[in-house]
Amino acid sequence: MSRKNMQVLLANRPQGWVQESDFRIVETELPPLNDGELLVKNLYLSLDPYMRGRMNDSKSYAAKTELGEVMVGGTIGEVIESRNERFSVGDVVVGYFGWQQYGISRGQGLQKVTTKEVPPSAYLGAIGMPAITAWYGLLQIGQPKEGETVVVSAASGAVGSVVGQLARSRGCRAVGIAGGQAKCDYVVNELGFAACVDYKAGDLRKSLRAAAPDGIDVYFDNVGGEILDTVLTQLNAHARIPLCGLVSQYNETEPRAIRNFGALLTNRVTLRGFIVSEHMEFWPQALKELEGLVIAGKLKYRESIAEGLENAPRAFIGMFKGENFGKQIVKLA
Amino acid sequence: MSRKNMQVLLANRPQGWVQESDFRIVETELPPLNDGELLVKNLYLSLDPYMRGRMNDSKSYAAKTELGEVMVGGTIGEVIESRNERFSVGDVVVGYFGWQQYGISRGQGLQKVTTKEVPPSAYLGAIGMPAITAWYGLLQIGQPKEGETVVVSAASGAVGSVVGQLARSRGCRAVGIAGGQAKCDYVVNELGFAACVDYKAGDLRKSLRAAAPDGIDVYFDNVGGEILDTVLTQLNAHARIPLCGLVSQYNETEPRAIRNFGALLTNRVTLRGFIVSEHMEFWPQALKELEGLVIAGKLKYRESIAEGLENAPRAFIGMFKGENFGKQIVKLA
Repeated sequence: MSRKNMQVLLANRPQGWVQESDFRIVETELPPLNDGELLVKNLYLSLDPYMRGRMNDSKSYAAKTELGEVMVGGTIGEVIESRNERFSVGDVVVGYFGWQQYGISRGQGLQKVTTKEVPPSAYLGAIGMPAITAWYGLLQIGQPKEGETVVVSAASGAVGSVVGQLARSRGCRAVGIAGGQAKCDYVVNELGFAACVDYKAGDLRKSLRAAAPDGIDVYFDNVGGEILDTVLTQLNAHARIPLCGLVSQYNETEPRAIRNFGALLTNRVTLRGFIVSEHMEFWPQALKELEGLVIAGKLKYRESIAEGLENAPRAFIGMFKGENFGKQIVKLA
Repeated sequence: MSRKNMQVLLANRPQGWVQESDFRIVETELPPLNDGELLVKNLYLSLDPYMRGRMNDSKSYAAKTELGEVMVGGTIGEVIESRNERFSVGDVVVGYFGWQQYGISRGQGLQKVTTKEVPPSAYLGAIGMPAITAWYGLLQIGQPKEGETVVVSAASGAVGSVVGQLARSRGCRAVGIAGGQAKCDYVVNELGFAACVDYKAGDLRKSLRAAAPDGIDVYFDNVGGEILDTVLTQLNAHARIPLCGLVSQYNETEPRAIRNFGALLTNRVTLRGFIVSEHMEFWPQALKELEGLVIAGKLKYRESIAEGLENAPRAFIGMFKGENFGKQIVKLA
């Protein structure tokens, strides 16, 4: 029985904003399995800002995607055929099969999960890489202490929403920054942040001062650019900045310069850029806490779900414009 | 017997560049000592960039100097009268008496030193606060490993010269950045750095790449601004940046914006601003190593000595223009 596999390939390296024409959708024939291999039907694909960096030719976190290659990405799927003794048909596995409907693997790096208590897509968000990113950056770099103020940008997103809820669980005042009133309302009313500032509403500095009147002890940065520059004016002495993403900058050909850099010295700030895949030793511990919190209903999350792989490019592009609301997922099957 | 004490007071808060008119030189009468006090005749005054921050009204590292107050500063001097049992006439003491010829103290914070093996002024430089700054920032924040490349700006200065020599002692490739060929020659030929880049010679990026062909693992930053921005383009993954000073910015009313901030994320850099007076627990250990190195002739240093307190303002202003060559000292007696 032959099977068609829809894939999204990188067709062009974008200059500035990504366009749909930078992707190419193809259908290929899946080869028969060799001994030791298994075939996974992907159920959900995770879309994450880091993928933008892989599209560039320049140095970034990790290896770039070559032109004509399948776009990278985290997936959760079901084993539908197995010639590998460690996996059985019906197993649900989290992996990195990328932007395609099926994946063939020898099992390395695949993680079996049970989906009795949580829906499978949660393993791409609140119990997955974005949440571990939040956990690692906040707890290992940010080191929040009870009573401190923790500010996070992109607060309604997959990472930011977890940062604030974890900060709250450590007795901190969690303050979000998000785009638009609806997202801010969600962050405060649903996620339980103490406050949320709408950066689109103007005078971010003043709003931030009102929302964080005691100054900022930890700034978990997902966006960079002007928001970062404004936050720098409100830091307390010995503040910590886990630098997780610069989403506002990924599609800019000329990055926005940071004017208030001097605040890092005058406040004796510790800033650290990180990528969570370099800290795998923390994953088991983080996943355990996150899974427990999700099951207990203490870690809430929200998803934007695009239907069908063919809509992945549009959803990806929208993410950089803030069109998603919560973790961006593509439902593949 | 009455004694006149010449003092330099802060007369105006400078906007931008410091001018001589921002200081006022006065002579006051020294009061007689009370029980428990001692009188120190200051021999040398240390001039350091941090003093510029104290002249501002804005938030900085530490308390600002009030208008009409004596400028703060490290000094070394001789006890010439004592009503304190812990100090005797003839003792040589390091302290913070500021920009004046004499100081009266109850002994707190004064450190007795012997000047048999090293000249007294060394305790303001290579065995003093600037060298401890180098020691702490390089070793505790920079954490250089053998074979790594350590770059330091203001490399011929009181801090930078020690950074490079300590880096070399840890088996690193020490690369300096300094202004002018004479300073660069000194850094390489006298201090033993592997290379030194003259930032005034143009195309810093290209020169830096030639001087640090394997990229930069530690950048000890004393200057900020355009030099920092250029260094950011040459960082290796997991680079460390002890942020010690922003000398190029202290006299600017509008700070130079940093364009290559994103490199801190893509290279997963750790950057930490610090002020050495917040880490007093390291001073004994640092001083011991530094004193040993100076006595053994393994830590070289150079001083720019201004003669007489009345010339302190001019020497201070010159320091921000790179007119000093090595540690800037004022000889008071």
